[in-house]
Amino acid sequence: MSNARYDFASDNTAGACPEAMESLIAANTGYTSGYGTDAVTKRAADAVRELLDADADVRFVASGTAANAVVCAALVRPFEAVLAHHHAHICTDETGAPGFFGQGLGLIHLPGASGKIEAAALKTALDEPDVSNRQSAAALSITNTTEYGTVYTVEEIRRLTDLAKARGLPVHLDGARLANAVASGFDVKALKDLGIDILVIGGTKAGAPLSEAVVLFDKDLSRRFDARLKQAGQLPSKGRFISSPWIGLLQDGAWTRHAAHANAMAHKLAAAIPYPVVHAVDANAVFVEMDEAALKRLHAAGWFVYRFMDGTVRFMCSWATTEAAVEEIVEALVA
Amino acid sequence: MSNARYDFASDNTAGACPEAMESLIAANTGYTSGYGTDAVTKRAADAVRELLDADADVRFVASGTAANAVVCAALVRPFEAVLAHHHAHICTDETGAPGFFGQGLGLIHLPGASGKIEAAALKTALDEPDVSNRQSAAALSITNTTEYGTVYTVEEIRRLTDLAKARGLPVHLDGARLANAVASGFDVKALKDLGIDILVIGGTKAGAPLSEAVVLFDKDLSRRFDARLKQAGQLPSKGRFISSPWIGLLQDGAWTRHAAHANAMAHKLAAAIPYPVVHAVDANAVFVEMDEAALKRLHAAGWFVYRFMDGTVRFMCSWATTEAAVEEIVEALVA
Amino acid sequence: MSNARYDFASDNTAGACPEAMESLIAANTGYTSGYGTDAVTKRAADAVRELLDADADVRFVASGTAANAVVCAALVRPFEAVLAHHHAHICTDETGAPGFFGQGLGLIHLPGASGKIEAAALKTALDEPDVSNRQSAAALSITNTTEYGTVYTVEEIRRLTDLAKARGLPVHLDGARLANAVASGFDVKALKDLGIDILVIGGTKAGAPLSEAVVLFDKDLSRRFDARLKQAGQLPSKGRFISSPWIGLLQDGAWTRHAAHANAMAHKLAAAIPYPVVHAVDANAVFVEMDEAALKRLHAAGWFVYRFMDGTVRFMCSWATTEAAVEEIVEALVA
Amino acid sequence: MSNARYDFASDNTAGACPEAMESLIAANTGYTSGYGTDAVTKRAADAVRELLDADADVRFVASGTAANAVVCAALVRPFEAVLAHHHAHICTDETGAPGFFGQGLGLIHLPGASGKIEAAALKTALDEPDVSNRQSAAALSITNTTEYGTVYTVEEIRRLTDLAKARGLPVHLDGARLANAVASGFDVKALKDLGIDILVIGGTKAGAPLSEAVVLFDKDLSRRFDARLKQAGQLPSKGRFISSPWIGLLQDGAWTRHAAHANAMAHKLAAAIPYPVVHAVDANAVFVEMDEAALKRLHAAGWFVYRFMDGTVRFMCSWATTEAAVEEIVEALVA
Repeated sequence: MSNARYDFASDNTAGACPEAMESLIAANTGYTSGYGTDAVTKRAADAVRELLDADADVRFVASGTAANAVVCAALVRPFEAVLAHHHAHICTDETGAPGFFGQGLGLIHLPGASGKIEAAALKTALDEPDVSNRQSAAALSITNTTEYGTVYTVEEIRRLTDLAKARGLPVHLDGARLANAVASGFDVKALKDLGIDILVIGGTKAGAPLSEAVVLFDKDLSRRFDARLKQAGQLPSKGRFISSPWIGLLQDGAWTRHAAHANAMAHKLAAAIPYPVVHAVDANAVFVEMDEAALKRLHAAGWFVYRFMDGTVRFMCSWATTEAAVEEIVEALVA
Repeated sequence: MSNARYDFASDNTAGACPEAMESLIAANTGYTSGYGTDAVTKRAADAVRELLDADADVRFVASGTAANAVVCAALVRPFEAVLAHHHAHICTDETGAPGFFGQGLGLIHLPGASGKIEAAALKTALDEPDVSNRQSAAALSITNTTEYGTVYTVEEIRRLTDLAKARGLPVHLDGARLANAVASGFDVKALKDLGIDILVIGGTKAGAPLSEAVVLFDKDLSRRFDARLKQAGQLPSKGRFISSPWIGLLQDGAWTRHAAHANAMAHKLAAAIPYPVVHAVDANAVFVEMDEAALKRLHAAGWFVYRFMDGTVRFMCSWATTEAAVEEIVEALVA
Repeated sequence: MSNARYDFASDNTAGACPEAMESLIAANTGYTSGYGTDAVTKRAADAVRELLDADADVRFVASGTAANAVVCAALVRPFEAVLAHHHAHICTDETGAPGFFGQGLGLIHLPGASGKIEAAALKTALDEPDVSNRQSAAALSITNTTEYGTVYTVEEIRRLTDLAKARGLPVHLDGARLANAVASGFDVKALKDLGIDILVIGGTKAGAPLSEAVVLFDKDLSRRFDARLKQAGQLPSKGRFISSPWIGLLQDGAWTRHAAHANAMAHKLAAAIPYPVVHAVDANAVFVEMDEAALKRLHAAGWFVYRFMDGTVRFMCSWATTEAAVEEIVEALVA
Repeated sequence: MSNARYDFASDNTAGACPEAMESLIAANTGYTSGYGTDAVTKRAADAVRELLDADADVRFVASGTAANAVVCAALVRPFEAVLAHHHAHICTDETGAPGFFGQGLGLIHLPGASGKIEAAALKTALDEPDVSNRQSAAALSITNTTEYGTVYTVEEIRRLTDLAKARGLPVHLDGARLANAVASGFDVKALKDLGIDILVIGGTKAGAPLSEAVVLFDKDLSRRFDARLKQAGQLPSKGRFISSPWIGLLQDGAWTRHAAHANAMAHKLAAAIPYPVVHAVDANAVFVEMDEAALKRLHAAGWFVYRFMDGTVRFMCSWATTEAAVEEIVEALVA
């Protein structure tokens, strides 16, 4: 396995981009106060606010799973539920973390093509009567870029958040791959006006070593949020080491630029891949129909990619994906 | 506050040491598999096993609070309790994290001078009958270096673990400052024979950017431990960024060497400080009797240090503490 | 609504049967020790052991939801999952109680006709590899009588428990309507040899005011089980008031006799009901295909019955159902 | 032990009083809707509202531990804490139930003589700054009658609730023995104006088989409270069996009358007991200084009473305590 290639296995198999590393290294100087109260963390939070053009509270945590789970626990109580796409990361790949952080909070799975929640299904779920023997819907979670590499438009998100807001439900946006959505044209500055209460912005998949930004548009939720994070093991003493990468990522646009590169690599791959592409390539993922024998041949050739929940095979591109790698994997696929 | 000095506020106000940063930067190359399955993480785990001369399972997490809380949850059930010194970090400074991760698990507070659990008190607690209306003792947690900068000898720990083991209780050792204990003479290779089931070794306070090693001496506890970590938001995809610093810390002894420096700085400070030193200076902390007016003067002079739980004032040294800084704070204290 | 009739709405809309009330009233004499340590509770536990012909530990709790949820929490950890029929009560009607008591433990939904888990689907689920990003199957939960009024044979249960046991998984049997299964021919004394670790026997639906028996066939699970119940709010001080009804229910066979009556009433209803019966009437439930207009007419006539998860309409009989009531509701249905 | 006497061991060792049993038996007629939606439960709730002269929401649960734990979980979040007397039942005798139901919520122990919270200590606790590494005070819990058999006056409670309300903290009153406080002169109709958000009224210790009333003065807390109870295993299907005893207890004053009897028996015992009485006998408890040899002799004579947390020995009277029993135990004590 010494020659194993993880280039397309996920967008978290790459390392950190130079800009993130430079600001992390630059942050490693002198003494600071702890637990996210330092000047570096403040600068990073300012950079996130500037990106969003929003006066929001910002925190940084070490893991996307923790970010999403803490947010779900902040929005609903154990006897309530979060509405989410049935293939959303919180529903499928976080080992039940929302239920762990939220003491059994429920997840109501919604259908929808290519990872986007179907508005009609959301409406039906919201119309369900409150009964004591079920966990009633109490928040909505949307993922953009979706798990299937498609990107919601601002209007598509607004349609969903309007439905939720009309019932008084708060909204979480899981933006683990928000950079790729923005690079494909999604207006990041529109987020503040979309009725989103808490936004998680992915740093890890965008080029940070490991860091996610938690953005509290609804500042009422900020009260004792640091205590919430501390109790959840997500308020590290040396906070600057998870916040500082954001300075490098955001100060001159690397966050979007790298995502645009990843998206371009996905388009290049989609154009050349000798299998039917299943979902729209809006961002950095390519999903194809591919039989098991073909997948095994690819694995045997040293390339690791995974069969996904919908039965297709997923190829992810990242800030680090090279044109050469795209050509090499296409060659391996053709062989 | 631009001139604020946090040199002695804690041993987590310093940055990361050069050795840890070098191995972190070196790890940032190429693609790897995720979630702690990569080769860098394996190397780091090997280095920890070599340090301990033990065939144990090793994991890396981003926060000491998370490490301790996950361990407590792994050792006792919600209707049981962990025995710990009443001023142990898990009892006082983690916002109830053990109870959060362990769904209300109890903490039984034990007395003892200078942060060391009194064996007689432990014995009394272990002799308490099991009753259904109390959370019975089901694990023991020991901290070395203690919260008061004192270091247990191997024999002192064995006396406590023998008592626990005689009742079948598993043992957790919180080694957030284990490096300082080792630098003061504690034999790190003795740990494997002391009846400890899970050990947490501090990286953050020893010079890592942020990382703690969780060592499972009892491999039965390893089953699905990665799922436990993933659910708890402590299995980051880019695992190499929390494991790699351990390679630099351990490959040529920096972990102990830096701790020895911190301890030496504490001794230098203790010798010069114009206030009565309260606890034995075994490691990198100096606790002194100091009235409120004197503390306020020190704060006014720009030096941040804290009044501790026992009413004394704590000065912490770290790998980064300079002789000059010790002299400067003594000067400020004398003034 | 003053003329509302709940006779067939559920088998918990009836009151308590005379035998249960008599033993409850008889238990109300003199002083006793508390929290289930009294002589009445011991007698009731003996009666349950005699029913099962098993040397098991027995506890009594006030609610079936609590019984099932406490059992799930006793069998799996938060990062693991319980396998159950997708329409099992724990999956659909307990407001997420297993996840609440088990801090987010997962439920893996299995298919199967008429409420019985399909063995092939169980096998497939058991063959899933252990991965850190999913909650792996760690226990099996079976319901007999099923939610659809069908009864597993001893052999059918053994086939499922054998599969689970071959992987080392413990088994829970939810017997909220076990009496009806026994009355239909299921050998209650076979349970002890079927690889079931914890059994919940329904008292409430069988004629008790409110009480469920928790039977611990695996006595290793009994350690600190009273503390577990106390913490869960299920160890009432005046324990005799939830245990005593079992004496009346079991001492001369009322538990089975009443269930046989309920089953007979269901057969009578099934024979006369002017709608297609959908599931086999093995016990006390009749499920029929019935359109919304017909259901509304029945409601308008004062009879409350519910449309169930599979879209059919459910009619439940109980110990208290009279022949006259069966005739009256059939008349209303025909009208 | 066949002659064991539990008359004075607690006020939950007695059975149910005739009035409670009569209304329970009377409720056992016909079919009702389930889960607390029945007419009997409505009548019982009306009786509680009338007792309190308050338009509050009322629910009934099967256990005092569950009632208190559910209330704590409703008032604070896991990273917050409830302020309570250090010997309050929630702090000492519920196996950590508040932390279990509230996923690790904290309890801040306050001092105070004879079970009453010292106002100055409460004020000090409320003045503690909010910090992220501690669970900050977010609710106040008061117990009346206290654990030491003393009764707060309306003014004493108001002094505490005023302090809490000034900081915006909600208040819980644990009234497991509220009847005894009322019988000793506490104005039960004053409760509605004291700033209490949730009140738990004890039925079990007042003569019910088993039942506690949860009174939601703050109706905002009622939203989805039934779902909260259902998930917590505290919304039994046959709700009338826990609500109905309240009709008998309240319709002609039995609840207060029986408590007055219990209080009178305690006074009779206190006057005759040959040991120093330690706490004021405001209600139905007598606490005395008594050495271990004397306690053993009493146990040997067949009388079960317990040494309490403060080192004294507790004698509890109940609705069922007879004058003869008081004389018999005094005789045993004198012998």
